[in-house]
Amino acid sequence: MSGRPFVQPLALTLGEPAGIGPDIALLAWLYRHTARLPPFLLLADPVFVAERARRLGLAVPLATVAPNETADAFARALPVVDLGLPITAAPGRPDATSAPAALAAIDRAVALVAAGEAAAVVTNPIAKHVLYEAGFAHPGHTEYLAELSGRLFGAAPLPVMMLWSPTLAVVPVTVHIPLAAVPARLSTDLVVETGRIVARDLVGRFGLDRPRLAIAGLNPHAGEGGALGREDAEIVAPAVAALAADGIAARGPLPADTLFHDGARKTYDAALCMYHDQALIPIKTLAFHDAVNVTLGLPFVRTSPDHGTAFDIAGSGRADPSSLMAALRLAARLAGPRDTPAAAA
Amino acid sequence: MSGRPFVQPLALTLGEPAGIGPDIALLAWLYRHTARLPPFLLLADPVFVAERARRLGLAVPLATVAPNETADAFARALPVVDLGLPITAAPGRPDATSAPAALAAIDRAVALVAAGEAAAVVTNPIAKHVLYEAGFAHPGHTEYLAELSGRLFGAAPLPVMMLWSPTLAVVPVTVHIPLAAVPARLSTDLVVETGRIVARDLVGRFGLDRPRLAIAGLNPHAGEGGALGREDAEIVAPAVAALAADGIAARGPLPADTLFHDGARKTYDAALCMYHDQALIPIKTLAFHDAVNVTLGLPFVRTSPDHGTAFDIAGSGRADPSSLMAALRLAARLAGPRDTPAAAA
Repeated sequence: MSGRPFVQPLALTLGEPAGIGPDIALLAWLYRHTARLPPFLLLADPVFVAERARRLGLAVPLATVAPNETADAFARALPVVDLGLPITAAPGRPDATSAPAALAAIDRAVALVAAGEAAAVVTNPIAKHVLYEAGFAHPGHTEYLAELSGRLFGAAPLPVMMLWSPTLAVVPVTVHIPLAAVPARLSTDLVVETGRIVARDLVGRFGLDRPRLAIAGLNPHAGEGGALGREDAEIVAPAVAALAADGIAARGPLPADTLFHDGARKTYDAALCMYHDQALIPIKTLAFHDAVNVTLGLPFVRTSPDHGTAFDIAGSGRADPSSLMAALRLAARLAGPRDTPAAAA
Repeated sequence: MSGRPFVQPLALTLGEPAGIGPDIALLAWLYRHTARLPPFLLLADPVFVAERARRLGLAVPLATVAPNETADAFARALPVVDLGLPITAAPGRPDATSAPAALAAIDRAVALVAAGEAAAVVTNPIAKHVLYEAGFAHPGHTEYLAELSGRLFGAAPLPVMMLWSPTLAVVPVTVHIPLAAVPARLSTDLVVETGRIVARDLVGRFGLDRPRLAIAGLNPHAGEGGALGREDAEIVAPAVAALAADGIAARGPLPADTLFHDGARKTYDAALCMYHDQALIPIKTLAFHDAVNVTLGLPFVRTSPDHGTAFDIAGSGRADPSSLMAALRLAARLAGPRDTPAAAA
């Protein structure tokens, strides 16, 4: 990749300013060599970021840049693209006045990718309740990204959340809904559509030839022949059959409790789970510090750390940048050889 | 413990004869030295067990004994207490004619403990559908043991299933029911009663001074303040408060996805989970081969391996006795110093 005149950086959003997003962005830049991070730019108010660096005692010089200056700046400073929206929130004290800057960072990140000025979007955690107070009307980060995709890329996709780590990748088919609402929300179509998107992106983004999907059952023992619930036979099994008919290597419904031990994990590339905790319990048990949230199905690559705003430790020096650094590395990998920025020298 | 005239053995049931119970019982005896197993007797038809040993090519001499002859016999042979009920089922081919022998083994094991002739009960997996065909009317193994407790000990307890391993112990508050039935089945009383039994047995059997219980939430993020379901605030939180008012060190409701990583597991002795997979996913992910099923709340100690009959590999030589051996060791430990049989010399 040497000799290319312009290396596309990753576009990193600040996330909720009162959370640990600023802290881990600064730490990631400090660790850029040892963590082999690709060049990234931070979409934020540089005055606010500089103040957080001072508070944390981190010797991180900032460079206010245009996106195409990122690669040159990255070796000596954290490149910041100024959004022109000042932020005043203190660490741990979320404040609705931050909402415009948090949203503008997301908008700009997607716009940079759409314009070919960034290779991928990496987002820091937002605080939905802060955005709701400011009038944000989307269920969450991912749904908002899907809407931006529709606006900027002309595609209105079904965004699919994958939690990825080197040892396990899981996809919750239903996500942030009460457990009692899961059985009614599940449908054969939803499992099939999710499975198709996962299989397509495992080929197109992850470079697998023929991805193997393990589909977990909803009920204990995957329903045990109907004795422990009928959804596995009536909803999940037909979805597995439909995916297989598409030529996708899908197996299931499989009992979820025996799906995640060392031996079982070798038999598939991603596990489709029927609800939030069925997916997140195993990956957070196995890869608590370095799992990455990847949104599949979008017309661009988007990753994010696998944790929240952590208001209780923002600005304290106790935030762990591992998951963000894993998200940055994975974003560069998924953005593809053509677009992968060279690792920081 | 030297000089005692009579060492109480563990009473091991054969389980479903067409499953791997006979295989792993034979293997456990063969490995008794390296696995440091306490003396145990097998409740079974000795002719059937000898035939399985021949089929597997295992040089395991059998000694048909009375229970009080176990300790002497154990060093040189697998002690078998003959139930007088011949078994003819072939490996992998369950047959309803085995049901009387499978049930008689359970009955006799509990009777031996009630009579002081055995220290604890260890059960091999049964096949419920085989027993149902023969007229068995209990939901499962554990419920049947609870009924026997009522008959033989005058106590009709609430049996509580714990999955135990050296790194994690979990208790599903609801167990073998469809996922859709879980929210309605949960109640504050059920969580409180389960928590009390767990705390009592962690003191009385496991020897902990002040056991720490982590109580998982039902919903994603433990309900996120009601946005993702109200059960955590309305059912689980009052149960945690009631347990705390009893002087039990209970915390919760806690988000289940962040409850099982290395750091989190250090903060409690047992996790109460609201449904089957919430408990069994983490323990089978972390301790697939050596988790043990322990029934708490009974007037005697009962453990069993953490797997089923495995009809597909019965008689093949591929069965792994690790979980049964862990169950035998744990039973001896829980039966208490007074009753703990000496480890096999």
